[in-house]
Amino acid sequence: MGKGQKTAITPTRQEDYPEWYQQVIIAAELAENSPVRGCMVIKPWGYAIWENIQRELDKMFKATGHQNAYFPLFIPLSFLEKEAEHVEGFAKECAVVTHHRLEVGPDGRLVPGGKLDEPLVVRPTSETIIGAMFSKWVQSYRDLPLLINQWANIVRWEMRTRMFLRTTEFLWQEGHTVHETRDDAWAETIRMLGVYADFAENFAAIPVIRGEKTPGERFPGANNTFCIEAMMQDRKALQAGTSHYLGQSFARASEIQFSSRTGELEYAHTTSWGVSTRLIGALIMTHSDDDGLVLPPKIAPLHVVILPVLRGEDQDKDVLEYCRRLETEIGKQEFAGRPIAVQIDASEKRGGEKTWGWIKKGVPIRIEIGMREFTEDKVFYGRRDKGPKDRKAVPREEFVFIVPQILEEIQQGLFDRAKDFRRAHTLRFDTKDKFIKFFTPKNTEKPEIHGGFASAHWCGKPECEAWPTENLKVTIRCIPLDAEEENGKCIICGAPSKKRVIFAKAY
Amino acid sequence: MGKGQKTAITPTRQEDYPEWYQQVIIAAELAENSPVRGCMVIKPWGYAIWENIQRELDKMFKATGHQNAYFPLFIPLSFLEKEAEHVEGFAKECAVVTHHRLEVGPDGRLVPGGKLDEPLVVRPTSETIIGAMFSKWVQSYRDLPLLINQWANIVRWEMRTRMFLRTTEFLWQEGHTVHETRDDAWAETIRMLGVYADFAENFAAIPVIRGEKTPGERFPGANNTFCIEAMMQDRKALQAGTSHYLGQSFARASEIQFSSRTGELEYAHTTSWGVSTRLIGALIMTHSDDDGLVLPPKIAPLHVVILPVLRGEDQDKDVLEYCRRLETEIGKQEFAGRPIAVQIDASEKRGGEKTWGWIKKGVPIRIEIGMREFTEDKVFYGRRDKGPKDRKAVPREEFVFIVPQILEEIQQGLFDRAKDFRRAHTLRFDTKDKFIKFFTPKNTEKPEIHGGFASAHWCGKPECEAWPTENLKVTIRCIPLDAEEENGKCIICGAPSKKRVIFAKAY
Repeated sequence: MGKGQKTAITPTRQEDYPEWYQQVIIAAELAENSPVRGCMVIKPWGYAIWENIQRELDKMFKATGHQNAYFPLFIPLSFLEKEAEHVEGFAKECAVVTHHRLEVGPDGRLVPGGKLDEPLVVRPTSETIIGAMFSKWVQSYRDLPLLINQWANIVRWEMRTRMFLRTTEFLWQEGHTVHETRDDAWAETIRMLGVYADFAENFAAIPVIRGEKTPGERFPGANNTFCIEAMMQDRKALQAGTSHYLGQSFARASEIQFSSRTGELEYAHTTSWGVSTRLIGALIMTHSDDDGLVLPPKIAPLHVVILPVLRGEDQDKDVLEYCRRLETEIGKQEFAGRPIAVQIDASEKRGGEKTWGWIKKGVPIRIEIGMREFTEDKVFYGRRDKGPKDRKAVPREEFVFIVPQILEEIQQGLFDRAKDFRRAHTLRFDTKDKFIKFFTPKNTEKPEIHGGFASAHWCGKPECEAWPTENLKVTIRCIPLDAEEENGKCIICGAPSKKRVIFAKAY
Repeated sequence: MGKGQKTAITPTRQEDYPEWYQQVIIAAELAENSPVRGCMVIKPWGYAIWENIQRELDKMFKATGHQNAYFPLFIPLSFLEKEAEHVEGFAKECAVVTHHRLEVGPDGRLVPGGKLDEPLVVRPTSETIIGAMFSKWVQSYRDLPLLINQWANIVRWEMRTRMFLRTTEFLWQEGHTVHETRDDAWAETIRMLGVYADFAENFAAIPVIRGEKTPGERFPGANNTFCIEAMMQDRKALQAGTSHYLGQSFARASEIQFSSRTGELEYAHTTSWGVSTRLIGALIMTHSDDDGLVLPPKIAPLHVVILPVLRGEDQDKDVLEYCRRLETEIGKQEFAGRPIAVQIDASEKRGGEKTWGWIKKGVPIRIEIGMREFTEDKVFYGRRDKGPKDRKAVPREEFVFIVPQILEEIQQGLFDRAKDFRRAHTLRFDTKDKFIKFFTPKNTEKPEIHGGFASAHWCGKPECEAWPTENLKVTIRCIPLDAEEENGKCIICGAPSKKRVIFAKAY
């Protein structure tokens, strides 16, 4: 941390939230922009978080009966065109492969050569190509349900990009399933939304609202789109995962038919659902502070870092040996079903630089070991969920014993803090004036964090959904699944309404 | 298996080896061709094998200090052009993205729109884009070595494709490392070749020869290319992994420079190394037989399948309960550091169809449980490395106890069998006549398996490498690392030579 700085990250969240976000990513070495327009490079620390996300989700998918498979990166244009709404939704952001080699051009430079008869689109999502395969795999009701997941890269040509939140290429998983009946497919859609919510809350410590999207916000071609929505620290909403009931429209487009129990040929009911590296953006903006990244222990690549305080003296040997013993002892402990990940950082950096490096990377527990700790058989440790100077010494044996408990406390504490934050910034509105005021910045001279989640009635009319979007940049995030029936009036037009929805500015 | 068939796969290896290979893949449900030219779909059983390969290799990479990261799918044309030999090597097989949206054309159909200023190539390998990032990450010798690996999809526009062996898109890992000195980079190149050989032999049970490629067979732009070469059952060679010492050429192209220990600015030495889904092709062709896929237990997604023999009677309940108990007991046993993967197949298929389905999928151990086994407290089992009718009954307790040992026997047995096969078909040649005869089919009327590995002297001249390629379709697979120095004569021209090399027809 530079002299005169009060926080490790400049600017702070209050000063400039979007820039703070970029700086947290850079300081934690999670990712950086690449020379390829709109594409980022996921650096080892960021990728290790993604690996942990993958491992946990993959386990949950397999536990619910899904199998992984892999389908082509390229989608022939004619496939994409099969579902009209679908292609319309993605046409503006498709990377298109038109040639299959490079040739020497007239000026001696390389130019595209070997024009393809039919252009290929780099998958923006895989319903159509996977549907083409499913139509071969599904013949009878005995082949159903077909429960497939794919881990893959996706390309959507975004004009304005931001690391993890919106990039031209991103990593994700996409589940694609085929069912005999509407009820089965509907149950799958809701089940996978539940898996996402469970993962978000119990692993990523991100409280989420489960809800349904309005017709205007549905996945192109879906009958119903469900989502989990989280509140970031600038009080904006972030959609962290979606699950779609696709009805029979994709089955018709791809001709996924099966002979039913009564011997008739029927179109199947399909679903799709996905989460992406965007989850890392959600993690960052839910938990991090003005000193950098804060990681929930269940997602952290490293739980405990041991920092030996070395003085270039003979005693360094004792200190290092003490650290190694501690590392072994801690590594034998378990947290959340895995051995605790612990590492000694004996690099040559200055003590302050080294400590701040790990704070900025969000490691849950930092341990400093010098001659004093060695002599007293103690551990001097700090927790990432507390202030950087809030540290304490405890006897080594005691520390080793309580490490899993401390990690559990941090995990739970981050979730509770995020939930409290969301609660504090979720308000019920029944008058349009107050609703407008809530979403209107008070001070236009400097960036200001305002608004939050507004729970208000909506009559269901598209124009009442469009009004806040056009006038306040506020959208309906979802109709919460647990919304209670009540008699109310649309916050925009005053018409009768039975349910409240969540309005917010969003990523 | 149909009536009158003697083997589950038609044709047999002897009858038509290439077609047998396709049929084994289809029968095992490993993969199938997709409607996208040259791209295959990896089905759940094939992908589960890839996941096992990934898990083991990833563990080995991390144990040798490597970290995973992720780099862009797209490479700007100008980046690829930076290394002249490199771009020349890949220019003919590049998928090129030229547009970033779809527009409605004059005839109402969608056409590519939004032409890019600079075309983007879908990565055929990532040296240049990763090099561009490394040049920012590497400043000082303190930043070295930089040891990065990426799991990714790759596109090379191949004119003739074959599932797993050569497809337009494939999955792989590519290691990219940066070092201070030539010696360090060289050691890394050889170390990773060793990791590949260890994996091939000890996990995939595929015996391999470690060697160096001739200058003509090097990776485009590399100083030295090393490989592991395996013999398939048609006696052809298959390159199963490569490791390249890139010298300073890519460092120069991407400007990867660092301030050395003496304070001077130096170009780094880099390496790259990779294995791909091609390994699955090697697995299939090394171990499978005329009844289908045979899997080494360490790579098998499932170790043991339990097939209850049900008769639609009351006693079925007892049989199923006995199966479940067996499943639990076997699942508590470990093999190669993981719990044994065991599953009951109680599907409605006929007994024969069901059994043959699992034989064709290559599951190492099949158990059949009927009333007799239940009554006698026994297990009736067959091993995939033995004939389909070679089965025996053993007491349940004994079986549960010896399962890990049986799997170990199968693993070792497959390796030994493959090694014996290679030994039987590796011959030393010292006269050109016999060399030519070895590689010339004896019977031209039907497909015939002939040849093998020829260990013979080569003087080092390109024309003596070209002669067998042009006349016999035989290439130098590698100069084995353990080749002994001896005085000999080039098998082609008779000039003096110090070492034997391996000649073979190859995939």
